[in-house]
Amino acid sequence: MELESTISLEVFFVSDRTGITAEALGRSLLTQFNKDDCRYTMLPYIDTEEKLSTVIQKIHAAKSDNRQVIVFSTLASKEHRQRLINEDFFVLDLFATCLPPLQSAMHRHSSPAIGQTHGMGDQNQYLARMDAVNFTLNVDDGLRTKDYEHADLILAGVSRSGKTPTCLYLAMQFGIRAANYPLVEEDLDKGQLPEVLKPWKEKLYGLVIDPDSLQKIRQSRMPDSRYASIEQCRKEIRQADTLYRQEKIPVVESSSMSVEELATTLMQKAGLQRQY
Amino acid sequence: MELESTISLEVFFVSDRTGITAEALGRSLLTQFNKDDCRYTMLPYIDTEEKLSTVIQKIHAAKSDNRQVIVFSTLASKEHRQRLINEDFFVLDLFATCLPPLQSAMHRHSSPAIGQTHGMGDQNQYLARMDAVNFTLNVDDGLRTKDYEHADLILAGVSRSGKTPTCLYLAMQFGIRAANYPLVEEDLDKGQLPEVLKPWKEKLYGLVIDPDSLQKIRQSRMPDSRYASIEQCRKEIRQADTLYRQEKIPVVESSSMSVEELATTLMQKAGLQRQY
Repeated sequence: MELESTISLEVFFVSDRTGITAEALGRSLLTQFNKDDCRYTMLPYIDTEEKLSTVIQKIHAAKSDNRQVIVFSTLASKEHRQRLINEDFFVLDLFATCLPPLQSAMHRHSSPAIGQTHGMGDQNQYLARMDAVNFTLNVDDGLRTKDYEHADLILAGVSRSGKTPTCLYLAMQFGIRAANYPLVEEDLDKGQLPEVLKPWKEKLYGLVIDPDSLQKIRQSRMPDSRYASIEQCRKEIRQADTLYRQEKIPVVESSSMSVEELATTLMQKAGLQRQY
Repeated sequence: MELESTISLEVFFVSDRTGITAEALGRSLLTQFNKDDCRYTMLPYIDTEEKLSTVIQKIHAAKSDNRQVIVFSTLASKEHRQRLINEDFFVLDLFATCLPPLQSAMHRHSSPAIGQTHGMGDQNQYLARMDAVNFTLNVDDGLRTKDYEHADLILAGVSRSGKTPTCLYLAMQFGIRAANYPLVEEDLDKGQLPEVLKPWKEKLYGLVIDPDSLQKIRQSRMPDSRYASIEQCRKEIRQADTLYRQEKIPVVESSSMSVEELATTLMQKAGLQRQY
């Protein structure tokens, strides 16, 4: 929670749908400025005159002498975006800015339908995506290894290296059936690939993490245990690294990457595209 | 997999990072045109001259007499985006299009840093987000109800109504600690709120689904079972609806909404903003 007085930029994301695209756009652009005193507010489902009026009032109320307002919007209704743009604050509307050049390129006019980026789309595509999430949950953490046959990729790594969030993101965002296998001490001490992974080497990837990050994560989970000791973390990581190298398993580095970056890097390595 | 000959629009998302923002932007804009013969290709991590050259060759190769090319890009390097824009295909670069007006509004120049929208950002923020995912997995499907105290919201609903993907999306995308509770027959037959939910009514939401959608989902999981019969689905949904109404629990409708829409609608109802 920021102190009211330290906020110098109020950023609003206004959309007639979820606002996820407006937010991604706005945050991406703002990374180009060194501003860390922003407050972000999402205002989704602004699809009537009345809701727009309320939003406009709210934005005006946030303005003050030493506080600037920036609005990122995705409003498919031409009337709504015109109304917002005419207000006395800065608005960058995705459709107003980007549709005209795209229209020229496409040699046709856009229809004023409400954007459906994050809408249901095709019901079967939606079910396929939810199936990927269920698949990933069902084979999480080394469960049901007989289902590896149906996985698009398998991610191996030591405990708490970030396998589950990465696999869930792959399933949720891209519809990828991502299994994960925890390399436990028993596997690592054998110094060879666990039997259940051997048939699937061509879709197997290894997660690498630095010992200090791993120690921090394990420590918050099981404070002062052998499991969370820096010696144990170093040993497991060294053994895992040796195994990956020996078996020529491609690796991704989880300590320096976000879950989005891990997921897209894995897709790139595996030559996978969005499945829905 | 589409037949090569039916593709009339090749869409590329080029980025020096994950490409997730370029993709969201591009897909959102393309919903304004009625094109269903598109092929989408993500080209992430294009951060060197060499990689850009390879990408430009690839895009040129996709062009043909009856096939148009559209490129959406987010390239923070001015040189790289200038090079791409100068090519003989349509490019809509997020930074080239949106930074100039934003710069004027911000009264300062942007720094040419590589975008970090989906980067690690602050390590503690990242851990907080992953904690939300772990929390959500730990309290999934009615497990560990004693942790409800720490939940930002609790989602109730009948089996297979979409609770788990919605909660995972809330955690992954917004860092919300979302618990879910399955309303089983025993709960529904009692006709009152289960004991474990009673203390948490102010953060409790109900998931509603139409019987046909539920039946379809259950049928694919347990074909021709009593559980998947339309009568059983209708009965459970009717009982759940009565319970929500009687206890004045706000509801969201899962049959007509995507997981993104469900998540943002729930956040709006609960007055929650992104937690990281």
